[in-house]
Amino acid sequence: MRILSAGTALPGPAIDTGALARRFGMDGIWEQWVDAFIGTRTRHLAIDLESGQPRQSLADLGETAARAALDRAGLSAQDVDVMVLGTATPDQLMPATVNVIADRLRIDDIPTFQLQSGCSGAVQTFDVAAALLRTGRYRTALVIGGDVIAKHYDVTADLGALPPGELVNYVLFGDGAGAAVLSTLDRPEAPALRAVVTRLSGLDRTPGQVLNWYGQADRSTAQVAPAHEDYKAIEEWVPLLAEQAVEDLLDELGWEREEVDYLLPPQLSVTMTRRITERLDFADAVEVSRVADTGNTGNALLFFQLEQLLADMAAPSRAVAVAVESSKWIRAGLALERGTGPGGDERSERDKRDGGELI
Amino acid sequence: MRILSAGTALPGPAIDTGALARRFGMDGIWEQWVDAFIGTRTRHLAIDLESGQPRQSLADLGETAARAALDRAGLSAQDVDVMVLGTATPDQLMPATVNVIADRLRIDDIPTFQLQSGCSGAVQTFDVAAALLRTGRYRTALVIGGDVIAKHYDVTADLGALPPGELVNYVLFGDGAGAAVLSTLDRPEAPALRAVVTRLSGLDRTPGQVLNWYGQADRSTAQVAPAHEDYKAIEEWVPLLAEQAVEDLLDELGWEREEVDYLLPPQLSVTMTRRITERLDFADAVEVSRVADTGNTGNALLFFQLEQLLADMAAPSRAVAVAVESSKWIRAGLALERGTGPGGDERSERDKRDGGELI
Repeated sequence: MRILSAGTALPGPAIDTGALARRFGMDGIWEQWVDAFIGTRTRHLAIDLESGQPRQSLADLGETAARAALDRAGLSAQDVDVMVLGTATPDQLMPATVNVIADRLRIDDIPTFQLQSGCSGAVQTFDVAAALLRTGRYRTALVIGGDVIAKHYDVTADLGALPPGELVNYVLFGDGAGAAVLSTLDRPEAPALRAVVTRLSGLDRTPGQVLNWYGQADRSTAQVAPAHEDYKAIEEWVPLLAEQAVEDLLDELGWEREEVDYLLPPQLSVTMTRRITERLDFADAVEVSRVADTGNTGNALLFFQLEQLLADMAAPSRAVAVAVESSKWIRAGLALERGTGPGGDERSERDKRDGGELI
Repeated sequence: MRILSAGTALPGPAIDTGALARRFGMDGIWEQWVDAFIGTRTRHLAIDLESGQPRQSLADLGETAARAALDRAGLSAQDVDVMVLGTATPDQLMPATVNVIADRLRIDDIPTFQLQSGCSGAVQTFDVAAALLRTGRYRTALVIGGDVIAKHYDVTADLGALPPGELVNYVLFGDGAGAAVLSTLDRPEAPALRAVVTRLSGLDRTPGQVLNWYGQADRSTAQVAPAHEDYKAIEEWVPLLAEQAVEDLLDELGWEREEVDYLLPPQLSVTMTRRITERLDFADAVEVSRVADTGNTGNALLFFQLEQLLADMAAPSRAVAVAVESSKWIRAGLALERGTGPGGDERSERDKRDGGELI
């Protein structure tokens, strides 16, 4: 099966750190702290930064990304046989946002699934979609991921009074959505999905990231913080789990590290991505990162990287993507390979030697 | 693949409608209205009804149900190769509750998935788990479903002042969780999963059920109702979609209606179940319903029915389960078959005639 296309959507204008500082009354020292410890230059928000009013929903962004992906694949909504969406921040608990998007695309009478997931969610959606396609019951899956943090983004917050584990949420994350078309259609020019790995890796580790929700009964009384990042734990464990995910993939495929031409590293922040990329040590690989401009878009981030990869990917070439979820700790990754020739219609010597597609 | 076992968990004592009436200051007329239009006698709640304080979480109930299912299958947590949980009401947005349960069971280093789903969620978890097992990468899946409505269950609510679409939530639903072990292990005595169907069926239909969540930023200002049921739409569409789900299953399997020995109908309420069962018209089938005692437990309800079915199921025999989600409308169902003889180790004549297991 192959990834035929990817599409993405970002809300509103790019918001740089200076604009955040002005909005929340923070000083130049704070801006320098964000630059040095996060490194993210801009992010996009689905709310109006002045009023805090929501401008776009996850369904809005997911619909736009899905339409872009379908257009690029030369397919219509009626070609979609199954849909899988991953998000940590559904618009509502019910209906699932995937079904709202399906309805807007005039998609019906197919199975749809929505995963509750964090930063490894995009890989999880590919894992589930690939398993569904492998049953032979479906040809084409529309895979979507995205997050909108509007319900938790309190523009009246006093950032100076927040503990670091909550403060970081205001600069680390951005809203966005992405989509991809995964299909068994005969499209030899498209990169083949060669492996997907997702593994819970949390035993005896406390969650590094927590995101809560409130209901009618507890919304005014709940004492739990809305969101919390244990950035020290994240700095300690994410590079290790990223390395393990790479080893999982390379072991499964029998690929050597120097045979990988593109690396799509985790996108928690610019500084974390740099640290992880150094550790992963793919000396010959081109890094595909978007985090400096989008911020950490959660379930969307891999789609932003895939969009760029699909535009640039040489034939033949190999790509490895890695994602790590720091909530209860999940390591995840996927591997892509494009065949030889401008059309990519002949498989590479390496591909033949390794003996066929694993998925 | 076969369903080796099922386990369930209910919080606290059974709460009858009289106890609800006393707690909320409702009169005898109201009790009679609940009896006549809902029919549910008791339900269990994960909160203390007097104080509204939470007593048990989804993770608590899911863990108990999972342990019961594993025990009954004669398996340990280390035999689990993949986990799938379905819920509309996760304890937190992150970490996913499936991973909290995994951690308590000392399960790690496997793929885990959590579906955001409503009343058809249990079938969706079987659909995803079956596809994952069919890849051949895994032998045994732990499938879990459950819901806890504590965050929305406001014991200070004035039920007399609520519109019917919100009032019904206080009597219709109950908390609970269930689990099942789905495996390709050689257990000929266990019923085989013969088919799973889930289909979005919502085009041009407004959602019949909405469940919202609030964040830090909007929890005091959001004007949207926490939950809403369009009971008229539910009464109109659920029987129709249940009938379509049955047709999907029977068509796929080539089964005749009179060959079905057990019917596990949708469990929205006692009165709805009665109406649907009459419409489905399985004259020869034994009905397996638990809703009168548990209320509508959402993602758990199919597991309560499966638990009873597995205890009673003759060999040979066939069972059909149907679920309908009224949020954005999903029809769903699954079919089970047990072989001949007390050990069930020989396949039935009907089974041979139909030509092997479809899953």
